[in-house]
Amino acid sequence: MTTTSVTPTTTGELARLRQLAANTIRGLAMDAVQKANSGHPGLPMGMADVATVLWSRFLKFNPADPKWPDRDRFVLSAGHGSMLLYSLLFLSGYDLPLDQLKQFRQWGSKTPGHPEYGLTPGVETTTGPLGQGISNAVGMALAERHLAARFNRPDFNVVNHYTYVIASDGDLMEGISHESCSLAGHLALGKLIVMYDNNSISIDGSTSLAFTDDTVARFQAYGWHGQHVDGHDPVAVEAAIAAAQAETERPSIIACKTHIGYGSPKQDTNKVHGEPLGEADVRITKEKFGFPPDQAFVVPEEAKEFFEQRGKDGGLRQKDWEKLMAGYAQANPELAKQFWSELKGESPAGWDSTMPSFPVDKPIATRAASGKVLDVIGPKLPILIGGSADLTPSVNTEWKGVRVITPDDFSGQYVHYGVREHGMGAIMNGLTVHGGVRAYGATFLIFSDYERPAIRLAALMEIPTIFIFTHDSIGLGEDGPTHQPIEQLSSLRLIPHMAVFRPADATETVECWRTLLNRKHAPSTLVLTRQALPIIDRTKYAPASGVAQGGYILKDAENPQVILIGTGSEVQLALAAQETLAKENIRARVVSMPCTRLFDDQPEAYRESVLPRRIRARVAVEAGATMTWWDYVGLDGAVVGVDRFGASAPGAIVMKELGMTADAVVAAAKKVLSKGSEPITQGWS
Amino acid sequence: MTTTSVTPTTTGELARLRQLAANTIRGLAMDAVQKANSGHPGLPMGMADVATVLWSRFLKFNPADPKWPDRDRFVLSAGHGSMLLYSLLFLSGYDLPLDQLKQFRQWGSKTPGHPEYGLTPGVETTTGPLGQGISNAVGMALAERHLAARFNRPDFNVVNHYTYVIASDGDLMEGISHESCSLAGHLALGKLIVMYDNNSISIDGSTSLAFTDDTVARFQAYGWHGQHVDGHDPVAVEAAIAAAQAETERPSIIACKTHIGYGSPKQDTNKVHGEPLGEADVRITKEKFGFPPDQAFVVPEEAKEFFEQRGKDGGLRQKDWEKLMAGYAQANPELAKQFWSELKGESPAGWDSTMPSFPVDKPIATRAASGKVLDVIGPKLPILIGGSADLTPSVNTEWKGVRVITPDDFSGQYVHYGVREHGMGAIMNGLTVHGGVRAYGATFLIFSDYERPAIRLAALMEIPTIFIFTHDSIGLGEDGPTHQPIEQLSSLRLIPHMAVFRPADATETVECWRTLLNRKHAPSTLVLTRQALPIIDRTKYAPASGVAQGGYILKDAENPQVILIGTGSEVQLALAAQETLAKENIRARVVSMPCTRLFDDQPEAYRESVLPRRIRARVAVEAGATMTWWDYVGLDGAVVGVDRFGASAPGAIVMKELGMTADAVVAAAKKVLSKGSEPITQGWS
Repeated sequence: MTTTSVTPTTTGELARLRQLAANTIRGLAMDAVQKANSGHPGLPMGMADVATVLWSRFLKFNPADPKWPDRDRFVLSAGHGSMLLYSLLFLSGYDLPLDQLKQFRQWGSKTPGHPEYGLTPGVETTTGPLGQGISNAVGMALAERHLAARFNRPDFNVVNHYTYVIASDGDLMEGISHESCSLAGHLALGKLIVMYDNNSISIDGSTSLAFTDDTVARFQAYGWHGQHVDGHDPVAVEAAIAAAQAETERPSIIACKTHIGYGSPKQDTNKVHGEPLGEADVRITKEKFGFPPDQAFVVPEEAKEFFEQRGKDGGLRQKDWEKLMAGYAQANPELAKQFWSELKGESPAGWDSTMPSFPVDKPIATRAASGKVLDVIGPKLPILIGGSADLTPSVNTEWKGVRVITPDDFSGQYVHYGVREHGMGAIMNGLTVHGGVRAYGATFLIFSDYERPAIRLAALMEIPTIFIFTHDSIGLGEDGPTHQPIEQLSSLRLIPHMAVFRPADATETVECWRTLLNRKHAPSTLVLTRQALPIIDRTKYAPASGVAQGGYILKDAENPQVILIGTGSEVQLALAAQETLAKENIRARVVSMPCTRLFDDQPEAYRESVLPRRIRARVAVEAGATMTWWDYVGLDGAVVGVDRFGASAPGAIVMKELGMTADAVVAAAKKVLSKGSEPITQGWS
Repeated sequence: MTTTSVTPTTTGELARLRQLAANTIRGLAMDAVQKANSGHPGLPMGMADVATVLWSRFLKFNPADPKWPDRDRFVLSAGHGSMLLYSLLFLSGYDLPLDQLKQFRQWGSKTPGHPEYGLTPGVETTTGPLGQGISNAVGMALAERHLAARFNRPDFNVVNHYTYVIASDGDLMEGISHESCSLAGHLALGKLIVMYDNNSISIDGSTSLAFTDDTVARFQAYGWHGQHVDGHDPVAVEAAIAAAQAETERPSIIACKTHIGYGSPKQDTNKVHGEPLGEADVRITKEKFGFPPDQAFVVPEEAKEFFEQRGKDGGLRQKDWEKLMAGYAQANPELAKQFWSELKGESPAGWDSTMPSFPVDKPIATRAASGKVLDVIGPKLPILIGGSADLTPSVNTEWKGVRVITPDDFSGQYVHYGVREHGMGAIMNGLTVHGGVRAYGATFLIFSDYERPAIRLAALMEIPTIFIFTHDSIGLGEDGPTHQPIEQLSSLRLIPHMAVFRPADATETVECWRTLLNRKHAPSTLVLTRQALPIIDRTKYAPASGVAQGGYILKDAENPQVILIGTGSEVQLALAAQETLAKENIRARVVSMPCTRLFDDQPEAYRESVLPRRIRARVAVEAGATMTWWDYVGLDGAVVGVDRFGASAPGAIVMKELGMTADAVVAAAKKVLSKGSEPITQGWS
């Protein structure tokens, strides 16, 4: 491989440069936080030495092409230390000028309080909520092993990179770190290397107040390789990272003993964690480092060159890689095409041309219908990596013939995540931001609560992670209120950018899959029943293609008086109510609304055509909390829903006892129609 | 101590009885699941031997008084194995007759799919969502140590019980188990004993698919005492529990190697985890046990007596304890009074008689105001145990002079939970259901997502855990979108029974504390600002006592045309808008709505007086997702809110850029007033 040698000629010189480089980071972090009067100087100052070794000696990256597919991934899991990352990006030559560091935490800058994916070049994932980044990194490391297994060929290691993490005490106290790191150990992700900032300080004070784990022993119990190192001894850090690289069978954790706020008068106290040092202490610290105490944002030329050299070196390495890819493409043209196509997130043409259809006389649960969709499309979509949090037989996510990813063979497309919903969500996000794969994973809808922080981050990052949830209402029956979702549907719809799909039958399930797989700039949620649902006869009702608009008129009445809006299993109730009402000469329109987000995104004319403003007699029906629906039915409408916890009994009985019946929809329709005569005169000017 | 001897006279006889007892449990579990055609026979069959030893040899309980304060706590964390617990309760003599076991998972029974607190005598906490029970148990064990430290006196160990847990692989894969068990190790909860059902099977198949932790080593890394034992060798199990009891400085985990579905043809497979065995296999299994294959719900007299004897023994032990308490009350009358009062959850008379007041000229963040309330009431309420998930300096939950609970002194009233929101929530629930304490704990509102499954269980159990969340909107500023709550307010309001309080100023904060501490049959959430808010001048506006009604008219106008509804920091915007509108002769009423739940619970006449149906021009303003508010403003109203992610910048700038201004409220008010002329004629019959 053609790389320039950047190592200074003497050990002493290297030590001096590393010190200067680390102190430059410390200075930038202090200054940016001071200028913003907000932020976290402690971690950047404490981990500057470790980060300097990693970024100047090991990390493979090209600032000129932050998206080079085979770059090493670097995740600052402790996202509050964002000034460490911004400093490294600036110093290494990314398109993040010093001016942006001066705009730290200001409106419109590329240097927000916590690193944001898609906003700042070189930021691989959004971090800040603790434990997410390290778990994303597990997904990235898994994506690397998977793509390597599928695409590498003898002499062509086209996928071959490390995933590095800087994690804090907080990251490792969070439960999600247990879930993802236990799985990483199980999967033997040998190219995942975590640098643990073992600084013994958290916000409340010494970690001895609450946290006395032997963390390295804990990770060893997961099957990790573990080391302890002085985080301010660059030579020792270098040796530890080299040893971690040499350990190819196990992920590695390097517990770096550091001093938070290193060099400042507030070093080793919680005062330096999350607030500016204060002008006086900044001066004192700079003097100690031999930096001009009265200048802010000082960048010694040597320090910049030291980091930039590594970036330039990365550019050369990318060129080598491109040569390798050229040879690869010659030797394996189809594979190379496939590789680039998957990196772009493309689906092969015609992937959805033959979807399953469902006979109207055979009721089927939407979870089972979803399984049948996957049986058809799974084999056509090598980009997919599916999985479940230990509910595979219940959530129907393992398509026929799919191979499982194991520590011995990463080329499969299915992950047994274990009972680790939160870890699964974050790992799926990591798989997705890595590129080259599209992740979906399933659990019961009730456990979306366990996964929620990761779901939110998918939405915040606007990445197309697919979250599947079955057992979607009290209709699941006997498992009872601990397992019956009530508030989860509304709660998921609340998340910005998230599209929640709840198909009414098997046919809508097909269309939901088609729609959500085409939805590539935001996450989707697919919510499915445990219980069988009748198939809506599309010769009598509108086609399910209306799913693409989020909501559509499933069955109209001439000059409708009342609109019945349903989702999922309750569309049946709306349809039955419509028939009953028709017998009483009440004209009801039935709207199926599998995805409120897509419906809301339609042009006003379409929305008005489905829900005309003048028709105020509206009833929504959904076996869940009613909150979603008041925006659609208004003060004159009604919602037939469930604003209480469920109960343990067979599903049909629970549905009936809790009022989820066609009769209840009929009664609600009549009630809203009768309310119409109330005068609503006041309040208008 | 007066106890009868129940140990059979020979070792062989004891072994025979234990076997019979365990097989009786297995039979009941098989039969109940078969009859319900739903449920989980695998765990009860696998853990029957362990449970038999625990319940017949160690557990201290009195079926005649399931609430005896000094009983041992038993938590079936793997709640899906509920038939194990129901069998034990029935066999031991609790008020749970065999008929109830025959009604397993049926409407109205006391034997729901997963154990439910408050429904079934002897069920100490609601379990099923994995990892919650073991974490509740940490809270129970902590409550025991705390009450023991405060109330025990030489010769009077009036608080002295163990907390036992049966946990599954799933419990230990869940991240929450890391959080709570790490803290349990830190706190050296020596009387917490976990029996781990190490059966190597999860729903997807062998645990080797996803879970290869060395669990005992992991727990040892937390500072636990760990043992391995054959879970089908009662003598070994007995020795292990005795050793765990003898280890007083560390919590104990006993990994019990068991066979899931023990004795059945489906033993050691995932087929026996969560579905009926099938009639044929039930027969075969019963034959193997020497039980009549054609009879269901067989209870050998000897087995019933074996368990009942322990219960009777417990009754005698309670009598001993009551004698001890009588002596204690003589020696320490005030302390005894205090003890009983706290067990009843009482607050001392006058606890809220002197609350802080706040001068109108000094803006103060509601988090700071809450801290000042705690400074006053904390010292008066020894029942309180406060804490924070490592955000103490930010959430203002540590009142002046409060002592911290440490492994060396459990008598304090403040817990440093570490960065463990989910564990904190579940531990607080455990503290609360234990009795004798009232738990509150705080983090940032955004991290309510991390805590959510525990919050839901507090609501489901209808227990008065207090969840405090600060940094409640985009107004927190620079930390940016990862830390700015958007959907969290609506999302928390969605949870049945949960009362979410969001005070408008310091004065409302006082009233919120008063109201929520008096709310003893459901959890409450207190949501507070990071930023300072002006104090509403109550000489000009309505008194904050209206908080008790959830919402109240803060400032009316004569014959109002439009209603402005605000919460928290946005009430200020509504008040400012009211003034601006008044200048344009638009008459606006301002409603402060700190708690929609309490408002919804008011009589209709009150609600109508605040939000008259005839006034349709309504604007709600809240710096969060709008979903909550459509139920209050309807199709003719407007909500000034934030249905997008936030941004990193100073709080006031983010508020302004995202449209959270008085001007926006004014504009919305004018718009809804202008819409009034639209005809809404159709739809009424």
